[in-house]
Amino acid sequence: MEAVERLGRALVKHGAIIDLYDDTVKTQAGNIVHYDFIGHKGAAAVVPVRADGKILMVRQYRNAVDRFTLEIPAGGKNGADEPPYTCAMRELEEETGYKTDKMDHLIDIYTTVAFCNEKISIYVADNLIPSHQNLDEDEFIDVEAVSVEDLTAMILDGTIMDAKTVSAILAYKEKYIK
Amino acid sequence: MEAVERLGRALVKHGAIIDLYDDTVKTQAGNIVHYDFIGHKGAAAVVPVRADGKILMVRQYRNAVDRFTLEIPAGGKNGADEPPYTCAMRELEEETGYKTDKMDHLIDIYTTVAFCNEKISIYVADNLIPSHQNLDEDEFIDVEAVSVEDLTAMILDGTIMDAKTVSAILAYKEKYIK
Repeated sequence: MEAVERLGRALVKHGAIIDLYDDTVKTQAGNIVHYDFIGHKGAAAVVPVRADGKILMVRQYRNAVDRFTLEIPAGGKNGADEPPYTCAMRELEEETGYKTDKMDHLIDIYTTVAFCNEKISIYVADNLIPSHQNLDEDEFIDVEAVSVEDLTAMILDGTIMDAKTVSAILAYKEKYIK
Repeated sequence: MEAVERLGRALVKHGAIIDLYDDTVKTQAGNIVHYDFIGHKGAAAVVPVRADGKILMVRQYRNAVDRFTLEIPAGGKNGADEPPYTCAMRELEEETGYKTDKMDHLIDIYTTVAFCNEKISIYVADNLIPSHQNLDEDEFIDVEAVSVEDLTAMILDGTIMDAKTVSAILAYKEKYIK
């Protein structure tokens, strides 16, 4: 099977955390079409596992979906060149108040391949060292420790719908708990 | 914990499948800030299970991530008011050439809660009836049947990174195979 051929990518709007582009693409049928493209610098996330096996989760209000969510700690990279490992280490400490000296890579995900290049690199940290939460002035996050069993139930009953969290928790179970 | 208060949502650009907005938000700290918001009409996806237990997957080129992907069949709703069940039934038949007379709801996911409201409703169909693939002129999709075992390995080794596919396959295992 062939790839499409991208003929152009025009910036429509430079946003705060994403950029909107208008892509001109030649399809395999030879037609010239326009696709939306959202450019994102990438992100990283962590499954922080306590000694008792519970996962440190963060609760916060998410404007885009008009609700509070329970997610694994995560955040955007400081520029496209920041290594995701560095980003994940920072976000873990900033959001949960625990740091670690070593993380294992779990999986990477593309959040929404139809129109966006956002890639989230997800790690597992099981050596959690008490430190200090360090939130931005406008960031409000509560930390909760939840068992993997309870998180699985919350995924299947619709309490947790965040794709990176669903992917990360279930992949963690596959790799470490089976 | 409090929610943020959204003071305004201004359309920046109406795209082909998404719209970019500039949200004005009052944070819990009382500051007025601007957030990117991508409006999406929603989507639906299906885990199509053959009689032999293999899953019908679709392979296609994804411009946004510059690569071929192996995904569960999925597609955008025909407008925000279309029931996701209807959308999933249509996309299953159009993309795989198999239809079904009944689907069970598996999970819903939000693809990327930091800036977008895209919700994908995911179903399971295990009564697959041969029909006809019905792709758009510019849509090129190959169908492959893959075992759940192999899909799990492809998730853990990085071959499959699409978040809806990772979420759907691992949730399907949790709910139906354990």
